[in-house]
Amino acid sequence: MSDQTPSYVEKGGFERDMTYVPDRITRGGARPEHGPVNGELWPVEPGRYRLVAARACPWANRAIIVRELLGLQDVISLGTPGPTHDKRSWTFDLDEGDKDPVLGIHWLREAYDKRFPDYPRGITVPAIVDVPSGELVTNDFPWITHDLFFEWRDHHKPDAPDLWPEDLREEMEEVMQRVFTEVNNGVYRCGFAGDQDSYEAAYDRLFDALDWLEERLADRRYLMGPAITEADVRLFTTLARFDAVYHGHFKCNRNKLAEMPNLWGYARDLFQTPGFGDTIAFDQIKAHYYVVHSDINPTGIIPKGPDETLWHTPHGRERV
Amino acid sequence: MSDQTPSYVEKGGFERDMTYVPDRITRGGARPEHGPVNGELWPVEPGRYRLVAARACPWANRAIIVRELLGLQDVISLGTPGPTHDKRSWTFDLDEGDKDPVLGIHWLREAYDKRFPDYPRGITVPAIVDVPSGELVTNDFPWITHDLFFEWRDHHKPDAPDLWPEDLREEMEEVMQRVFTEVNNGVYRCGFAGDQDSYEAAYDRLFDALDWLEERLADRRYLMGPAITEADVRLFTTLARFDAVYHGHFKCNRNKLAEMPNLWGYARDLFQTPGFGDTIAFDQIKAHYYVVHSDINPTGIIPKGPDETLWHTPHGRERV
Repeated sequence: MSDQTPSYVEKGGFERDMTYVPDRITRGGARPEHGPVNGELWPVEPGRYRLVAARACPWANRAIIVRELLGLQDVISLGTPGPTHDKRSWTFDLDEGDKDPVLGIHWLREAYDKRFPDYPRGITVPAIVDVPSGELVTNDFPWITHDLFFEWRDHHKPDAPDLWPEDLREEMEEVMQRVFTEVNNGVYRCGFAGDQDSYEAAYDRLFDALDWLEERLADRRYLMGPAITEADVRLFTTLARFDAVYHGHFKCNRNKLAEMPNLWGYARDLFQTPGFGDTIAFDQIKAHYYVVHSDINPTGIIPKGPDETLWHTPHGRERV
Repeated sequence: MSDQTPSYVEKGGFERDMTYVPDRITRGGARPEHGPVNGELWPVEPGRYRLVAARACPWANRAIIVRELLGLQDVISLGTPGPTHDKRSWTFDLDEGDKDPVLGIHWLREAYDKRFPDYPRGITVPAIVDVPSGELVTNDFPWITHDLFFEWRDHHKPDAPDLWPEDLREEMEEVMQRVFTEVNNGVYRCGFAGDQDSYEAAYDRLFDALDWLEERLADRRYLMGPAITEADVRLFTTLARFDAVYHGHFKCNRNKLAEMPNLWGYARDLFQTPGFGDTIAFDQIKAHYYVVHSDINPTGIIPKGPDETLWHTPHGRERV
């Protein structure tokens, strides 16, 4: 996603702009297995699309993880913009010649504008781009990971995990909704609060939810039980950034993640699972928040801590 | 002290202005038992002087603690400016009518100016004011606590601790010097660094010193052994502010104090000792740093955390 233009509602509360390009990529371009059709339908086709996802961004990080877990690396390629961006766009400044090697563009905005000239909303990641035309397909992040699972199933690796178990679907949607509003978005509500009262209300909401999760994880190895699901992916990307960014930069500081034993064990358990920790670049994560939010951190100085090696310590969650 | 005008040296490093009014209050106004005479000498006299010390300020906090430990509360009165100040001065905005009830002034600057018209340096706390004339006596913080011990000895309570044990004096001066440059001032060196390189060097220096202290406290209950000394007072005032302010606001975030077992046990041991924790007002401490340093925290929002109740948990240091 893109953080440069938080919108504020009355009384200083933060509200995320949730309007995205709603196109979906489906099996044969047919009606999807689940969910709404509010835009165009594109056909699943190995090698045709490029996932553009900055390692810094938690919303993009979801898609990188799911692509890895499902073994879609050879089917959908990955472009990775650098951690910082200006008001215009995320940019491919980590790549040779400052251009994405497949799309040949410097600004991600170029793919948006090619599809919608002078695209008026934020240029966000994750974004899926149609390689032949260079046009944006969709940036609708919750449906991107959903469709990587349901619509691309023919191309998953043989031992791909069942990230959306049918029998847990209903409870999982509730858990994911609460994680989204209270945690994924809850940290931003703290950090982008426009006044003291909004901030304090946001802080209480966030830690109420973390207390709920701490309790939930006391007798469940993962959020939905003994196996990893999409719900874990969605929580993990916020937890991975918690002590490094949200605790200090967004003032989510009742305690560190490392001070909540179940959540911290759970987060390390996932981190040490292939497809999770290997997608995390703490240097990019910190650079993103501490440089892009110059209204919160005008010096632009990036904290050196916390000690990242703690993520590799034994988590003991096999016993849960 | 006053933080509104940090001075920067070349390459972005922070250097504290250490020029103070060097007057001293001594037994009978005679030559002091220790230390230099670079200003005037004033006689010890119960009831004559007022210690002005904001609870927010770590340098002022030292003097409040020593006054309590030595039982000088009835001998030297205490005035407490509020936590925030503008470029002009600390102010008595917590008092009725916004004036110090004894000195009758709103701005501490008035006492400085009465002594030195248009006093050109920072208006700092702790400051000792001569009540009859309303004039500043001294703001030379290391000598203030020193002299409360050596020069006011006739007025200590009967069971006052020996804060400067003669046989430990030499080692204690070395420890206090290292604590001053590396820790008390080290956190400011991180927070006021003008560029990334200065900040990172400051961070390394600070945590090197904290690692040294963590080790030193493994087999010593207090810094100099089994009894509390002035060295503990000087370290405590920084530790008390570490997780609440320095960890996030000054980016001293390799780890929290609460993640260093010996230092955290030691800090709580002192906090739970009369004269230490009862001088700490976390709300004033946080308000001071997060409001006064608007160049670091332009939103002025004050973090709600961390959880202060942890300071009252068992520390287990009796066993050391």
